[in-house]
Amino acid sequence: MLNVGIIGATAYTSLELIKILLRHPKVKITYLGVRRTDRPMISDIFPTLKNLLDVSCEPIEHKEFPDNINLAFITLPPTISMQYVPLFTKRGIKVIDFSADYRFRDKSIYEKWYKAQHTDSAGIETAVYGLPELFREEIKKTNLVGNPGCYTTATILALAPLLTHGIVYPDDIIVDAKSGVSGRGREPREDTHYCECNENIEAYSVGGHRHSPEIEHILSIKTSQKVSIQFVPHLIPMNRGILCTIYAKPKQNLKETGFILSDSEVHRLYKEFYGKEPFIRLKEGNETPKTKDVIYSNFCDIATKVTENRIIILSAIDNLIKGASGQAVHNMNVMCGFDEKMGLL
Amino acid sequence: MLNVGIIGATAYTSLELIKILLRHPKVKITYLGVRRTDRPMISDIFPTLKNLLDVSCEPIEHKEFPDNINLAFITLPPTISMQYVPLFTKRGIKVIDFSADYRFRDKSIYEKWYKAQHTDSAGIETAVYGLPELFREEIKKTNLVGNPGCYTTATILALAPLLTHGIVYPDDIIVDAKSGVSGRGREPREDTHYCECNENIEAYSVGGHRHSPEIEHILSIKTSQKVSIQFVPHLIPMNRGILCTIYAKPKQNLKETGFILSDSEVHRLYKEFYGKEPFIRLKEGNETPKTKDVIYSNFCDIATKVTENRIIILSAIDNLIKGASGQAVHNMNVMCGFDEKMGLL
Amino acid sequence: MLNVGIIGATAYTSLELIKILLRHPKVKITYLGVRRTDRPMISDIFPTLKNLLDVSCEPIEHKEFPDNINLAFITLPPTISMQYVPLFTKRGIKVIDFSADYRFRDKSIYEKWYKAQHTDSAGIETAVYGLPELFREEIKKTNLVGNPGCYTTATILALAPLLTHGIVYPDDIIVDAKSGVSGRGREPREDTHYCECNENIEAYSVGGHRHSPEIEHILSIKTSQKVSIQFVPHLIPMNRGILCTIYAKPKQNLKETGFILSDSEVHRLYKEFYGKEPFIRLKEGNETPKTKDVIYSNFCDIATKVTENRIIILSAIDNLIKGASGQAVHNMNVMCGFDEKMGLL
Amino acid sequence: MLNVGIIGATAYTSLELIKILLRHPKVKITYLGVRRTDRPMISDIFPTLKNLLDVSCEPIEHKEFPDNINLAFITLPPTISMQYVPLFTKRGIKVIDFSADYRFRDKSIYEKWYKAQHTDSAGIETAVYGLPELFREEIKKTNLVGNPGCYTTATILALAPLLTHGIVYPDDIIVDAKSGVSGRGREPREDTHYCECNENIEAYSVGGHRHSPEIEHILSIKTSQKVSIQFVPHLIPMNRGILCTIYAKPKQNLKETGFILSDSEVHRLYKEFYGKEPFIRLKEGNETPKTKDVIYSNFCDIATKVTENRIIILSAIDNLIKGASGQAVHNMNVMCGFDEKMGLL
Repeated sequence: MLNVGIIGATAYTSLELIKILLRHPKVKITYLGVRRTDRPMISDIFPTLKNLLDVSCEPIEHKEFPDNINLAFITLPPTISMQYVPLFTKRGIKVIDFSADYRFRDKSIYEKWYKAQHTDSAGIETAVYGLPELFREEIKKTNLVGNPGCYTTATILALAPLLTHGIVYPDDIIVDAKSGVSGRGREPREDTHYCECNENIEAYSVGGHRHSPEIEHILSIKTSQKVSIQFVPHLIPMNRGILCTIYAKPKQNLKETGFILSDSEVHRLYKEFYGKEPFIRLKEGNETPKTKDVIYSNFCDIATKVTENRIIILSAIDNLIKGASGQAVHNMNVMCGFDEKMGLL
Repeated sequence: MLNVGIIGATAYTSLELIKILLRHPKVKITYLGVRRTDRPMISDIFPTLKNLLDVSCEPIEHKEFPDNINLAFITLPPTISMQYVPLFTKRGIKVIDFSADYRFRDKSIYEKWYKAQHTDSAGIETAVYGLPELFREEIKKTNLVGNPGCYTTATILALAPLLTHGIVYPDDIIVDAKSGVSGRGREPREDTHYCECNENIEAYSVGGHRHSPEIEHILSIKTSQKVSIQFVPHLIPMNRGILCTIYAKPKQNLKETGFILSDSEVHRLYKEFYGKEPFIRLKEGNETPKTKDVIYSNFCDIATKVTENRIIILSAIDNLIKGASGQAVHNMNVMCGFDEKMGLL
Repeated sequence: MLNVGIIGATAYTSLELIKILLRHPKVKITYLGVRRTDRPMISDIFPTLKNLLDVSCEPIEHKEFPDNINLAFITLPPTISMQYVPLFTKRGIKVIDFSADYRFRDKSIYEKWYKAQHTDSAGIETAVYGLPELFREEIKKTNLVGNPGCYTTATILALAPLLTHGIVYPDDIIVDAKSGVSGRGREPREDTHYCECNENIEAYSVGGHRHSPEIEHILSIKTSQKVSIQFVPHLIPMNRGILCTIYAKPKQNLKETGFILSDSEVHRLYKEFYGKEPFIRLKEGNETPKTKDVIYSNFCDIATKVTENRIIILSAIDNLIKGASGQAVHNMNVMCGFDEKMGLL
Repeated sequence: MLNVGIIGATAYTSLELIKILLRHPKVKITYLGVRRTDRPMISDIFPTLKNLLDVSCEPIEHKEFPDNINLAFITLPPTISMQYVPLFTKRGIKVIDFSADYRFRDKSIYEKWYKAQHTDSAGIETAVYGLPELFREEIKKTNLVGNPGCYTTATILALAPLLTHGIVYPDDIIVDAKSGVSGRGREPREDTHYCECNENIEAYSVGGHRHSPEIEHILSIKTSQKVSIQFVPHLIPMNRGILCTIYAKPKQNLKETGFILSDSEVHRLYKEFYGKEPFIRLKEGNETPKTKDVIYSNFCDIATKVTENRIIILSAIDNLIKGASGQAVHNMNVMCGFDEKMGLL
């Protein structure tokens, strides 16, 4: 059995993580750490866990952790996370970090967008971006995974095949993203008040959202070209789920490269790219992804459509599962040599 | 034109009040007062008012108010409200107060439930409970109205005909009430977070809710008997609307009194009681009230059903309109001798 | 491995059943039968099952079924179901039926409420009501289970301890029930249209709902007294979940029986009654059940509160899981001697 | 008083139309016609109208209409509508048609997309597209208005200033549109079932939606250039409201034309274009339109944002009001010389 600890157990993603791990046959949760100290039982914080996991949460400010942890999930906010990750990696303990602190190979991008100095350069150097579909081999070998953001997962998976094969211009991509409210976190705020979100849709961070540089950074590295996107997120009145509608422009000289642009050829290309991936499902014909088909699952559903001037890619995930906790468990499975689907179907 | 001021302009009820008053042909809003001072324009607080009411909000802590107010709506929280009401009544200005501070003729009930000493005994003595269907004549003559709560409005209107005619036992009444989330106010809290309310229903204050003594107090006064109810409110994932499902027990000796208990007789009794009321609509046959039919309106829809052991009464209102701001305008119309429906259809 | 078939695979309950069975380590789905014949793959009917169960659905009108079925779940509507159940029971195949057709020991009650003649008297005689908490021993021995309705499950579990111990009057019970829309089935109708349900709450079947006689019948049998309830269901704008708010009247002579009516004593009584039940969770102190804590699970959360004139019992379940498919799998586990929790946590 | 008739009174848009007209001081509803004949009272079809408009609906299949109609609103589906419109126009009665039948000056576009032969060529020739902000003078003079679609209204208003001034390429425009479910109509269908829409977002008609040619047609006529757009609509779990997120590409030679591309300059351009329009509200600074601020109103809220490669325009309307019935009344006001805001604030 792998003994795992969760550091930062009060987030919505932590709850989903716990629920997945409780079903995982090779894992035992041996430690829960929280920044708040007033409510000791995890089943008091999340009554849905009653009878499933009735253990107490330990305060983490002392930064002392027990020995019986083989792998730590860090679900703390960015800039806080990097204060805790080295405490584990230095002791040789595997870490999967949910914040943005270990997603960038280039410290300067992180520091610009998160407005903080990065204090763990050593960590950044060994960290691997935890998108198994693109970085599986690296994940197998690392002890530190930077678990991807939710918008980024849906966007990168949707675009990787086209960009890898040079089908579309890397600097003329529009990502219109829609997310359920749990993506905003669990903290009560005016913009997460029920009456403000319900019966409403709005765009936010139109000027620039933190997930935008993450998407560009990872896609640029992976496809060896400078990728730049126009990213606009929207808040949707539903608890969970993300749908990305992506508009990419096919290159003009495609014929010369031998690629015949059509729905079936694009579909074939995605099938080749993701054919054996356990959590990617490609829609057939005119079917489009619906978030209701992926929520509470680790699947990413993708459809493509060729129109007169664009290739439209639609991708849907559960922001808390494939966009966070399910992907983290997938990474754990890869890191530990378990069956990749274990605990996730 | 009647010049009105609104003291406490940032509540959901204040927004509804403003929207109604803007349509009222005999009213001009001349003053908006707020406890917060950072956002001066009402259309910044409520962008939906842009182009409709672009005036600034004045801070109220100094407790000084201009002369050009003929009637003041006080939409402050209980215990705060009574600090402001006398400032107006003493100058002969009509007041309609939205808090609980002027709803009880008996100070001691108020003080027990609101855990505060009442500082305006004079006000209590002249205040009239602002339910026009039951206290129209008193409202006509008063300068100070205690505007009823939302749950109380729906419950009292549903029960008044049966209790007035002595058809049911006054001490064996169950009120199972369901409210949209706006009833909880506009303050962000864990229990109004979108993800906590959405896809959820729960009961709250099962031991005792503040509206319970208000209902009992008013019904007891109005029907000259000691009324006691069992009241359980529930939070429903919708913005607005209240549905009360009320179970009353018919008296055993009804036949002796000449009342033949049946659906049609009960319906007839309600028709007599509310026949000319402009905002009461009685459902016919097996039709039941739906909150969607009353939201954004000042109507209260009521249905009755006689079963083997009970008379079931269903009543639906918009908690922000008939349960607050619409009723306040109705009271204003009565107090000022306007057509009662003015601004409300 | 137990080979199971699902007869009537297109209902919402069927989807939930499939998802649970796919996680069950001792079960293999070997047959899916449907009344419609146009969409052969189950993952076309429910795209969420893509990659999880890509098998075809067989038409069932011929009433011929393969041999490789050890247990059949029948998820057909009432009156249709009883045409199929005997086809399996006669061959010695275990059956768990989701309709009302095998829930009544007394045929006449069924025939009155479902307005149809019952054609399988032999089935009724051997059928056991599939509420494991109350009928575990009988379920172990039977080959035919009538799986309870959703409202009935929540209500019976809430009332059984009090009625069994004679604490409350069996004929003065009010059940105010609230259900998500999936309880209405998957058929598009005016009353399940999104815009008609959303931002709305309404009561329905106020005169009498089919679940009412089922509740009375089972509670009467189990607690050996004539139980009669006042049952009013409501439609709530959410996908799934049921909350029952139940008002029971404590008997006047309790003291003589040695029972001291108090919150703690009632709570102790429930704890004794359900102490070892794997799927009953009793709320402590002033905590109340929330449907969000039980949806997607087989738990029933229950709270009790003693007030001046009533004992209030609140119970919450997922109507599709504990109110249908989860309970069916629980019954299967009991019938087959599996660990009761298998596949359900 | 203007006597108006509504032909096709059972749509969601008809209900909104009636509610607006009931508040309009110069209008009297004298006729309601329906295609169904079973429920004669409009307040039976829409119980929310009870006590507001208790008149009967007449069957329209006979195509005979009374004389006391000065203006007819036709709220029938496309291809049905053109069978009724001439019956009124021929008698000199003003008509505002809600369908697509009179929105295209070019019959062939209509016939291609609506797969039907147009039978009223004379009507098409005199019909004016009912977007007052762009066609006010023509509307003043016509007897027949083709009332715009909901998506088209939000999109055309958002793009007209930029296209009129030649700021952006007319053939590189992406419109990512999000609509509440009432946009799908009132007919129960699988895709409007509550449980299918709730907690879900999906794109539809990705290949090509009927509103796409309407937008291109009108913008091309109005701005004298061939406009072509990429339009993808999405279904959002809310009753009403549309948000369009539009990505337009600024021309490369703008500097030569003297236009300095910046947030403030684009904002100034919109202010000039719409400065006096009563129903256009331009957001300031970083504020973005929210559908909750426009629902139940005739406003269109618009924001613009200049990014590295695009101008992003956000526009929000109520699909049933500014996208249908409010706009129709606005058109009526213009046609009849009433104050344009009458009945609409």
